[in-house]
Amino acid sequence: MQEEALQYAREHREQFLNDLKAIVSIPSVSTDDTYKPDIQKAAEWVAAQLRGLGMDRVQVYPTARHPVVYGEWLGAGADKPTVLIYGHYDVQPVDPVELWTTPPFEPTLRGDNLYGRGASDMKGQVVASLKAVEAVARTGGLPVNLKWLIEGEEEIGSPSLAAFIADNKDLLACDVCLNPDAGMIGPDLPTITYALRGLAYFEIRLKGPDHDLHSGINGGVVRNPANELARLIAGMHDENNHITLPGFYDRVRELDAEERAELARLDMDEDFYKKQTGVPALWGEKGYSPVERTGARPTLDVNGLLAGWTGQGAKTVIPAGAMAKVSCRLVPDQDPEEIYRSLLKYMETNAPPTVTWEVVKLTGGAASISDRNNFAVKAMSAAMESVWGKRPVFKREGGSVPVVGQMQSLLNVESVLIGFGLPDDNLHAPNEKLTLPVWYKGIEALVHFFYNL
Amino acid sequence: MQEEALQYAREHREQFLNDLKAIVSIPSVSTDDTYKPDIQKAAEWVAAQLRGLGMDRVQVYPTARHPVVYGEWLGAGADKPTVLIYGHYDVQPVDPVELWTTPPFEPTLRGDNLYGRGASDMKGQVVASLKAVEAVARTGGLPVNLKWLIEGEEEIGSPSLAAFIADNKDLLACDVCLNPDAGMIGPDLPTITYALRGLAYFEIRLKGPDHDLHSGINGGVVRNPANELARLIAGMHDENNHITLPGFYDRVRELDAEERAELARLDMDEDFYKKQTGVPALWGEKGYSPVERTGARPTLDVNGLLAGWTGQGAKTVIPAGAMAKVSCRLVPDQDPEEIYRSLLKYMETNAPPTVTWEVVKLTGGAASISDRNNFAVKAMSAAMESVWGKRPVFKREGGSVPVVGQMQSLLNVESVLIGFGLPDDNLHAPNEKLTLPVWYKGIEALVHFFYNL
Repeated sequence: MQEEALQYAREHREQFLNDLKAIVSIPSVSTDDTYKPDIQKAAEWVAAQLRGLGMDRVQVYPTARHPVVYGEWLGAGADKPTVLIYGHYDVQPVDPVELWTTPPFEPTLRGDNLYGRGASDMKGQVVASLKAVEAVARTGGLPVNLKWLIEGEEEIGSPSLAAFIADNKDLLACDVCLNPDAGMIGPDLPTITYALRGLAYFEIRLKGPDHDLHSGINGGVVRNPANELARLIAGMHDENNHITLPGFYDRVRELDAEERAELARLDMDEDFYKKQTGVPALWGEKGYSPVERTGARPTLDVNGLLAGWTGQGAKTVIPAGAMAKVSCRLVPDQDPEEIYRSLLKYMETNAPPTVTWEVVKLTGGAASISDRNNFAVKAMSAAMESVWGKRPVFKREGGSVPVVGQMQSLLNVESVLIGFGLPDDNLHAPNEKLTLPVWYKGIEALVHFFYNL
Repeated sequence: MQEEALQYAREHREQFLNDLKAIVSIPSVSTDDTYKPDIQKAAEWVAAQLRGLGMDRVQVYPTARHPVVYGEWLGAGADKPTVLIYGHYDVQPVDPVELWTTPPFEPTLRGDNLYGRGASDMKGQVVASLKAVEAVARTGGLPVNLKWLIEGEEEIGSPSLAAFIADNKDLLACDVCLNPDAGMIGPDLPTITYALRGLAYFEIRLKGPDHDLHSGINGGVVRNPANELARLIAGMHDENNHITLPGFYDRVRELDAEERAELARLDMDEDFYKKQTGVPALWGEKGYSPVERTGARPTLDVNGLLAGWTGQGAKTVIPAGAMAKVSCRLVPDQDPEEIYRSLLKYMETNAPPTVTWEVVKLTGGAASISDRNNFAVKAMSAAMESVWGKRPVFKREGGSVPVVGQMQSLLNVESVLIGFGLPDDNLHAPNEKLTLPVWYKGIEALVHFFYNL
């Protein structure tokens, strides 16, 4: 039966790809409310797919912002495990859109790659899950019970999801969560992610004069809020690139020697990161290797800066205000709320009386770390070995998937974190792509996974 | 005859105001080439006014970018002085346009004020000069020879003007330049500006990764160009708010005790600047008073910042690049070209190998300082005393009018720097205005000035 399902998956690749193109064509950008109709359309598309797979109780649940799609099939029986498949159908914005070779919402094949916003993060992964289930369901039938929870707010920090899970604990009860929102280190390196960084994302707004000033008439007597914002941001790191927010590292769980040795075995050295990013030289916190710095250490990055005149040419203005979007990637056991208070304390201590300021919390989620001996992790490890011919590597992921922590705390289940995207997929950037040969292998790995459970 | 001219000016206020509204209605924004047709329209409007005043040889001269308007009347005879009236018909951009109470190019009266971009800087001053000449010419006739040089590039640093002056030295030959592009300290404080700051304006561009990166996957190994830009900007001032660019102060002419005492007599204390700017507290270079810091000391201000995601909500991106517009106000005898080299040296010394950078020169001009015993300065001082009943104050101006230096170096003439705008006119900012009762007095002062010469 398993072989028939794999055969089905191989024979239906063209149809799978067409379905992927259909969902990538929908501009379901969650951060911008002008896309609300497309968000709804994407949710309905997922619901229609679930109905097509014979799922029961398929429903698009409204939330405070963007809907959650649910569906289930419990026909395997109470003695079989129930897998909750998590995913999100929303995508990041596309700016700067002029850097895309082809339009972000016109999925385009070039070589082995499908280009389009969400092709990798994570419409491709949602469709891989749908198609693996299709292959199993249309051949021997599903050997496990399934539930689906596909949200539309992941790229804005899943503001409605925790409440939805808390309000629907019985509906969502399961034995394990399959979360394909992670990725692979390389096309021949199947990867299981066992730890994720958290996120605390802020907007810092400084105000100086009550209107934009002429920099000649007033330059020299007013604190320029853009200069001051630069000073405040600069002060958030010391000369060793440690973060200076008071108490920032208090709860950071240090790596032990064994885990450091294991992480060192990953094929992710300086050259790997230089090639992925195109920077002239790496940078980072003193005392840690690159793979440790991206997976096991917290960071603080400016995500956006805006002040004054940014158009063509010169405008001699002292801007009335200046804005920075600043976010921290967190590691176990840092708490986003404590990081917020730490940033407030930094601002209270360091912002001068010549400006006023506010800090707005935009989104946040705790870091997570998973049990590598969970039955489903073992099933996934064996599934990947069947397809790639080698055991997967175990890694800490620098990105944030707050739902993994919510699954632990609200449903008391572990997540199996995988995905079939690659480090050069340009996530959150122009020219996002998905490498199809790896994706097809991923669908087969998921088929194995359902049979291995 | 003088009394008739003053009477004419008083009787024609409504017509003067209507002409001012007509020119303020033309959106002659010089920095943005989409306004090129409006620039041309404004130049033609000025030329038509000059023809209406009976000026000869009126011509709109094309330059590499925006045209210069010329006209002359030499009927007073070779034994009378020739005054070259300088002005500019271009204006600053209007962003942020949503902060304007009424549209910037629909001049609107509220109380004693006319609101509109350019109403004060400096279409109002150009029209005051035109109307004072009209009042004199239509009554007793002009007692002096006149030349007009009205350019369209002042707000972008007058890139074509120096060449135009150098190429037309005979045409522009004169005894003194009347430059009404300065302003008054208060409505009852007629003001003659004897020193101007220069300007050196740059765009600093940092590049890090070759594309925007996911801040989770790569945060910790790449230098974020926005963070680095903040660090570089922060390092440009020390803890006493002195500028740290190497050699920056080498040529600064220090104030002597007499001039410091004179500047201290100006009614421009901390409260004055706090009221003008709305800042919670003043800021500035240690060791100097506010009026010294704006007039006689150089500054470095960020005029614009842009990096990464600046829209609504959160985007977890490490931006590929970051940009700052940074400009210095210069004092005698600093040289913009030396300041450029000083900034390059700072960047070479301080920018790390984890990013690449470039500095683009946008505009610049030297500072200037004038002879206060010039015959035309004395004529203006007496003219102002006739209208306001008090001798004018002499001040150093923080803004830059590069043409004053060019008049000195290319035509070997001093400038009389005045103007009838006020400190709260919101120059270069939303809701620019002109206070009409002061403006009408200014027109009368110019009538006196022509008779006093």
